Amino acid sequence: MFEAIGERINTSRKFVQEAVAEKNADYIINDVKQQVQAGASFIDVNAGARIGHEVEDMKWLLDTIEPVATVPLTLDSPDPAVLEMAYKMVEKTPMINSISLEKERFDAMMPFLEGKDCKVIALCMDDAGMPASSNDILGRAKSLVEELNKIGISTASIYVDPLVQPISTDSKKGIMVLSAVRAIKAEFPEIHITGGLSNISYGLPQRKIINRTFVTLMMEAGMDSAIIDPLDKKIMATIRTADMLLGEDDYCMNYLKGVRSGDIES
Amino acid sequence: MFEAIGERINTSRKFVQEAVAEKNADYIINDVKQQVQAGASFIDVNAGARIGHEVEDMKWLLDTIEPVATVPLTLDSPDPAVLEMAYKMVEKTPMINSISLEKERFDAMMPFLEGKDCKVIALCMDDAGMPASSNDILGRAKSLVEELNKIGISTASIYVDPLVQPISTDSKKGIMVLSAVRAIKAEFPEIHITGGLSNISYGLPQRKIINRTFVTLMMEAGMDSAIIDPLDKKIMATIRTADMLLGEDDYCMNYLKGVRSGDIES
Repeated sequence: MFEAIGERINTSRKFVQEAVAEKNADYIINDVKQQVQAGASFIDVNAGARIGHEVEDMKWLLDTIEPVATVPLTLDSPDPAVLEMAYKMVEKTPMINSISLEKERFDAMMPFLEGKDCKVIALCMDDAGMPASSNDILGRAKSLVEELNKIGISTASIYVDPLVQPISTDSKKGIMVLSAVRAIKAEFPEIHITGGLSNISYGLPQRKIINRTFVTLMMEAGMDSAIIDPLDKKIMATIRTADMLLGEDDYCMNYLKGVRSGDIES
Repeated sequence: MFEAIGERINTSRKFVQEAVAEKNADYIINDVKQQVQAGASFIDVNAGARIGHEVEDMKWLLDTIEPVATVPLTLDSPDPAVLEMAYKMVEKTPMINSISLEKERFDAMMPFLEGKDCKVIALCMDDAGMPASSNDILGRAKSLVEELNKIGISTASIYVDPLVQPISTDSKKGIMVLSAVRAIKAEFPEIHITGGLSNISYGLPQRKIINRTFVTLMMEAGMDSAIIDPLDKKIMATIRTADMLLGEDDYCMNYLKGVRSGDIES
């Protein structure tokens, strides 16, 4: 079953930032409910955009969201102090967004993650920058798994982000990440693969058809999660349809439910 | 580069049958031109629906189409006598649709195909019926290749149709055919994979999103051709987008051309 991580509660989005500034809880609650209704398995919460306000904004957002969220939250910050506070405020096992192999982020995140009951997004990024090949992505994923296992995070709790790169810069960027996903899943069958998708279409027109077609390919390769806007009805319909075609929907029940509710249209 | 076999010139379609009955050449010519304009690499011609008229209908259709078709034709009949006549009427190397392992069809088609300069669609069908597993599909493909090679048809001229079956009858029918396609391409790298796609969605509502999502998955597995309506703009846009994402469109040039011409929309 594919897990959508709803990306909408992010203070870099104009309406969210306004709602946070005005303490408009109804707006936030309504957005969270819509995301869950549309099929989000996690709600990402990012309060990083108002410089100097991240602690208070994250606290207010969690005070607002935690009582109404029927799914777990993804706590999205590079700051371990913010995450320590946020971690204590949530009831359901959260997902932490994110750790990477960049030395500064890695050194900050490891002490926070050690001994925690959480899932974690692990970015295949290091101080050399974006990965340059499938093997490079696989190597970084292996390092992340090894380090996280050492501090008690099981492989099944790791959501590797292989870092999708724009096809407009190199026509092989799509197959590069697809084969990396296949290799990571072959090495660690119980791992999860997640990430943003829209980077694939960066620099090109009519981006949504590219993103939808790409998520279908990524799902076949083994991606079972994505950081996504669950209110983008067409991509969510494509994900449910691909899930069915890949043998994950017995008797097409989830697909048929989506058609009946109007969420899936041709 | 994916090859669409345009399926519209078929007397089982009402308007085509009327055009043939009334010798309305303009209608047929216009339809063929539209299919080519939309990206068809072959135009399938099937005159089988008016019982007792197949020879004369096929002859009239080819007289009409051959002078204007800028792409090769797919001669679509189970009758070797019809195909012998049709084969003599076309200039560009045609595709023959089709042979199978069903004894009656096989015995009729082999003498016709022997020594011909043509491509051929080879259906993974035998007298036991539809294939029951990936291995079954692969085994039938192997038998077809072996027999066709013997009479001088090269593997690169064979378009195997693995026979897509409805996901509504068994949630594993999608992954069954996907893994069969992968296995056939691994065994015969130079072979083509083709077929109808819409059978996948038989019995389900909102069929077009299923067909579009499925062609994306099939292309990743190795399908490089399909028997399709090229005027279905959304599926053609998906095919061009998938081609790009799979590394087959340098500098995204074909994708960008499609956006500029209005053929690709999000």
